[in-house]
Amino acid sequence: MQLDWVYNKVAEINVHSLAAAQQRQNSLTKPPGSLGRLEQLAMTMAAMQGKDKPTIDRVHISVFAADHGIAEEGVSAFPQAVTVEMIRNFSRGGAAISVLAKYLRAELEVINLGTVIEHEELPLVRLQAIAAGTANFSKQSAMSDSQLSEALQVGADAASRAKKSRAQLFIGGEMGIANTTSATAVACALLGLPAEQLAGPGTGLDSAGVKHKAEVINRSIDLHRAELDSAIKILGHLGGFEIAALTGAYIQCAQQGICILVDGFITTVAALVAVNINPEIKQWMQFAHASAEPGHKKLVAALEVEPVLDLSMRLGEGSGAAMAVPVLQMACQLHNNMATFAEAGVSSKD
Amino acid sequence: MQLDWVYNKVAEINVHSLAAAQQRQNSLTKPPGSLGRLEQLAMTMAAMQGKDKPTIDRVHISVFAADHGIAEEGVSAFPQAVTVEMIRNFSRGGAAISVLAKYLRAELEVINLGTVIEHEELPLVRLQAIAAGTANFSKQSAMSDSQLSEALQVGADAASRAKKSRAQLFIGGEMGIANTTSATAVACALLGLPAEQLAGPGTGLDSAGVKHKAEVINRSIDLHRAELDSAIKILGHLGGFEIAALTGAYIQCAQQGICILVDGFITTVAALVAVNINPEIKQWMQFAHASAEPGHKKLVAALEVEPVLDLSMRLGEGSGAAMAVPVLQMACQLHNNMATFAEAGVSSKD
Repeated sequence: MQLDWVYNKVAEINVHSLAAAQQRQNSLTKPPGSLGRLEQLAMTMAAMQGKDKPTIDRVHISVFAADHGIAEEGVSAFPQAVTVEMIRNFSRGGAAISVLAKYLRAELEVINLGTVIEHEELPLVRLQAIAAGTANFSKQSAMSDSQLSEALQVGADAASRAKKSRAQLFIGGEMGIANTTSATAVACALLGLPAEQLAGPGTGLDSAGVKHKAEVINRSIDLHRAELDSAIKILGHLGGFEIAALTGAYIQCAQQGICILVDGFITTVAALVAVNINPEIKQWMQFAHASAEPGHKKLVAALEVEPVLDLSMRLGEGSGAAMAVPVLQMACQLHNNMATFAEAGVSSKD
Repeated sequence: MQLDWVYNKVAEINVHSLAAAQQRQNSLTKPPGSLGRLEQLAMTMAAMQGKDKPTIDRVHISVFAADHGIAEEGVSAFPQAVTVEMIRNFSRGGAAISVLAKYLRAELEVINLGTVIEHEELPLVRLQAIAAGTANFSKQSAMSDSQLSEALQVGADAASRAKKSRAQLFIGGEMGIANTTSATAVACALLGLPAEQLAGPGTGLDSAGVKHKAEVINRSIDLHRAELDSAIKILGHLGGFEIAALTGAYIQCAQQGICILVDGFITTVAALVAVNINPEIKQWMQFAHASAEPGHKKLVAALEVEPVLDLSMRLGEGSGAAMAVPVLQMACQLHNNMATFAEAGVSSKD
């Protein structure tokens, strides 16, 4: 596999900028600590950007889309045609992430890594098809080694485009009917948990549907068990093209020194794979929101992170991450533009 | 007292717009319910604005400042001079709320209802002094009846200015050394709780300081107990000028039909007073964030509301409410601009 690069060193955060930002936070005209999470967010951005006064003016959003062979097992509430229908919707500006990207004036691109239905050329959409969806992993490996390698590289290339456009924040989104099944299978294999503890309704399964989904996942993990001895192999056997692309994008962002804003359930599974490959990647990640997909709680607990928002969202596409962008921007604005006690002539604590 | 107006009817929300907004939400290209809290927020804004497609383009922020006689009892971590020093800081753009208002392009005004130190004329600041701070309520009533009436009216006038500038959202902020003590006393009297259950560190008291603060509050409530037989009397005996102004502003907003975005601990106490005066006012309120001031949890439980954000903030000034504005704006944008299943040609659930 052409994927030695995933083990390369990540960029270093700037400890001098971190120290300077910490000192600045303590001098601003507010009771110490009273900006809560915003203080740490601003300091982290300072450390990532190597600047005492960090900014988030340029946000890059890559939505990765692909189909999943596992959809044959009846694990989604929506038909598989929806993957391509939603790609068209992204392109025309009608999807949630389209609306949010416009509000944020963020750079949005959609990457099709392979769907069962073909589509015409579409604005904003890059066609980088690996195959017409993954194989049904309840019967065989979801991807071949070379397909996995290719999907990781597609993600890495998106991160490189973000770097080239000098983005200060990278958001990965995803679309792919049945992809919570694939993501849940990957997470169960990584965390050693039975599917009953992580499987949820996804786009809207009823309880019988969730039970069936968990059975499919448990059966599939049993089938592949002997091969599941590393994060990268788990990703290849049970993952999806878009999940692998997200993993590749996150790894590349960390290597290139771009702050990653992780969205919800599926993207957090991709983050978990990346952190299993190299724990250092986590220092380049912020977690945007607590997903309403029930398994998300266990993922953030495993990663020992705390999402910024909890709006009971479970839409995907990167939409939860987009919601958190103004919080990060305002954290930076406060950090950069509030007066210090000395500047404002305000008395400090008794 | 000239305050019969506080009992006047509130504006009615538009149930037709609410029904139309509900129908629209269900037709948008997303799994039903997957936008979580954003769906209800958009529908509520539609009902308040009487529009199927609500917007939040004009935000009015009034920061009410005043001093408190109770500061004599040593209940704050900061000296009383800070109230006026911070008014200057608001005026010069160096305070947290100044920075956030600029980011949001919101209309910001500061109203001084009475401080122990006088200040020169300042840009953005309206001087509407009632007295050089309230009286020390551990010894006598904080306000006379006419002072209370005047403070409520100052708040109502701010709401009327917001209405005149066609604001779709009203944020009240506050500044006043020792005002968590006054707010806590009002809340304890309203909820029938001992101060130990609500008193917190405010701007940064240590545990001995919090204990002393609770003792002062309990002693003061005992002193006034015979008089504390209505929300309005509790506000007059134990409140502050800025807390009364917030209450008056909220009541007037509800009567004029402007959405109120309530900030943190002190503003939630003002909201609790308003809702005690007339429970109908609550339907015009959204609660922006869960404050890190420990007593806030009990206030939101008593009001049976759920704040939108939890960022562990405890700064006041309206800063937590400002952080929630983009969430409300994006909820409206999604509601208004996402494509429907029919428009996008996306297949619905199996």
